[in-house]
Amino acid sequence: MNFKVPRGTQDILPSESWKWQRVESIIRDVCDKYRYKEIRTPIFEQTELFQRTVGDTTDIVTKEMYTFTDRGNRSMTLRPEGTAPVVRSYVENKMFGYADQPVKLYYQGPMFRYERQQAGRYRQFVQFGVEAIGSADPAIDAEVISLAMELYKRVGLKDFKLVLNSLGDKESRTAHREALIAHFKPNIEELCGDCQARLDKNPLRILDCKVDREHPLMKSAPSLADFLNEESAAYFAQVKAYLDDVGITYELDPNLVRGLDYYNHTAFEIMSTASGFGAITTLCGGGRYNGLAEEIGGPASPGIGYGLSIERLLLAMDAEGVAFANDPELDVYIVTLEENAHRKGFKLLNELRSAGIRADMDYMDRKMKAQMKSADRFDAKAVIVIGEDEVEAGNVQLKNMADGSQEKVEDQNIVTTVQEKLK
Amino acid sequence: MNFKVPRGTQDILPSESWKWQRVESIIRDVCDKYRYKEIRTPIFEQTELFQRTVGDTTDIVTKEMYTFTDRGNRSMTLRPEGTAPVVRSYVENKMFGYADQPVKLYYQGPMFRYERQQAGRYRQFVQFGVEAIGSADPAIDAEVISLAMELYKRVGLKDFKLVLNSLGDKESRTAHREALIAHFKPNIEELCGDCQARLDKNPLRILDCKVDREHPLMKSAPSLADFLNEESAAYFAQVKAYLDDVGITYELDPNLVRGLDYYNHTAFEIMSTASGFGAITTLCGGGRYNGLAEEIGGPASPGIGYGLSIERLLLAMDAEGVAFANDPELDVYIVTLEENAHRKGFKLLNELRSAGIRADMDYMDRKMKAQMKSADRFDAKAVIVIGEDEVEAGNVQLKNMADGSQEKVEDQNIVTTVQEKLK
Repeated sequence: MNFKVPRGTQDILPSESWKWQRVESIIRDVCDKYRYKEIRTPIFEQTELFQRTVGDTTDIVTKEMYTFTDRGNRSMTLRPEGTAPVVRSYVENKMFGYADQPVKLYYQGPMFRYERQQAGRYRQFVQFGVEAIGSADPAIDAEVISLAMELYKRVGLKDFKLVLNSLGDKESRTAHREALIAHFKPNIEELCGDCQARLDKNPLRILDCKVDREHPLMKSAPSLADFLNEESAAYFAQVKAYLDDVGITYELDPNLVRGLDYYNHTAFEIMSTASGFGAITTLCGGGRYNGLAEEIGGPASPGIGYGLSIERLLLAMDAEGVAFANDPELDVYIVTLEENAHRKGFKLLNELRSAGIRADMDYMDRKMKAQMKSADRFDAKAVIVIGEDEVEAGNVQLKNMADGSQEKVEDQNIVTTVQEKLK
Repeated sequence: MNFKVPRGTQDILPSESWKWQRVESIIRDVCDKYRYKEIRTPIFEQTELFQRTVGDTTDIVTKEMYTFTDRGNRSMTLRPEGTAPVVRSYVENKMFGYADQPVKLYYQGPMFRYERQQAGRYRQFVQFGVEAIGSADPAIDAEVISLAMELYKRVGLKDFKLVLNSLGDKESRTAHREALIAHFKPNIEELCGDCQARLDKNPLRILDCKVDREHPLMKSAPSLADFLNEESAAYFAQVKAYLDDVGITYELDPNLVRGLDYYNHTAFEIMSTASGFGAITTLCGGGRYNGLAEEIGGPASPGIGYGLSIERLLLAMDAEGVAFANDPELDVYIVTLEENAHRKGFKLLNELRSAGIRADMDYMDRKMKAQMKSADRFDAKAVIVIGEDEVEAGNVQLKNMADGSQEKVEDQNIVTTVQEKLK
């Protein structure tokens, strides 16, 4: 019987996992600087949470969710996105009562969407995201965006841009919604079945359609920008002013609507501009979601956040030819030449590791030459050789791999001698 | 509508997540020293992988798996344990062909078992585990155990012990199996239905029964220790010798069988001996699984590994009264007193962060006193105050929170002055 990794998922092997660790350590560092704290929510949630918040006419909810019934007969869904679970936790744990608002959170972990397979798209992907919940200050919108930009800078990316829009408040959206219905209704039969179904329920989602995106009706559709009321326009102007103040440039795109129902006011994406990055250039997407906490039973708690895929961040690094430098794998490799030497070597190995030294030895009973090759592959700075003679004499051969020099070291001096050499 | 975290799962909030990060950073450091590399496999796998390897008479497979059918009509299961996926990946990615054997891997992430709820048991829990695949050297058994012991030591635990057994090779297990059937068969109707079903299929699992564990037939059951053949006994003796050499003490427990079918030879658990730790004292369990790679379509690749729950490690720390020290949350907090000051403050905030300083400000339009309280709660080392006067004069008030001293700093000197103070 042969088993394979499930379709649309991937194993991250040691040859790649160290890069993920590097990105995660940068994430932690940047979030720490911005005082965003990590939250970890479960891999699955009640299905209704996503239906209610992401929206039951969105592609995510209608086509892409991994939904199952658990042994207690409850409908559960592997989380397709991170915001709804975090806001659920904010409400359930009464974080709106914390003395310091907004509550600034970040998360990082696998998300699941059953999408058509294509390059750079996975059904299980790792998302990093931040959420600042509890403040309607336009400066926090700028802070959240700034954190994402900082992160891409810190991993070494240069070719990316911020695209910005405002979806306005409820009043603005209602006015726009009516205009959209009036625009599409007369010719709705030219669009796909999904779009027809969306017309009355959620016409904004039509703009988001993957099938009809080239249809002329899309291009002539009324723009949200023309329907922003005074308050929404003023809010958006302030967000832009804060971004201007800190030197973050942006493009305005009135068609940026995001594929989730809970967004309003500020909506943004960060896109790769690297040539050869492929068709899907979005690296990061987010926006404001005032009203989401109320939708799931909490008090009014304005919020803003975003999510970005680590897979796509790494792909963007590849596209730009940006790479992390890897460290050597080992300080010391121990070569042992027969069974008593092996016993002695194992004991020494433990002593070295206890002293904080990165060390390893052979567990395959191989010849000296093969063991020396391993030491080379691991880029070990020193090699310790133990044969029958060294067991009897109570010493070892210590070889410096940088200059090839070799010396006898008494057993009781090995750890300190190695520590000295590694300085 | 109110939403709750799914039963048996938990949110890890900022008040706890920093401890998880601390443990994870220790894990990475210890694994790095031992040259174990991280592997990440998907959250779910083909159901049959676990049926085939964990065993279709085990509690895990018969009662505890989260199994669902995906949109492509394939049966998938949220991974209940980490070894089978890692060995699946080892085989699928032909790691047996890597120049350096054994391949030494570690993983860390959520696992899922639909268990009865009780203290310290979660349906989603986070498991850290290591796997060394490709070597049948008893020294690697000792290395794997040593890594687990080192980890518990490094987080500060003192009250734990290693319990050891050998399950022997196939021949030994077959002899023991026959003795078990002979022992239980005459009185099998006294045991539960599950045990009766196990008698012919897998009598070893009877010893593992949670219902009948106090039944006298259990205590008088033939012990595997009496059925080890010469080769198995010799292997076990060598594992013990390596542990003795490096000063790792252990208790022998011939009844330690582990609840998974793939184990043979060395089996072990690490248990908390802290008083008040609760009924379930196992912190870590593992063993050797020669034959597992063949079972799932690969070449013979002897392996050994273990898994441990981070939740239980943290519980053990609590039980022993061991705690990590937390860092202050911020270097600098910026207090702003009206809108222009807020704009100036946000700009300064970005400059400080770009210089690597951990900084934050108010986004709630609060009075000075409330903002100063936040600075206190965040344990900020310095506070910058900006009011109308400071905007006009092009400076700020910089307050040292350690001694309460205050000074005016010109705008262009703020970052360097703060850096100087933080040294």
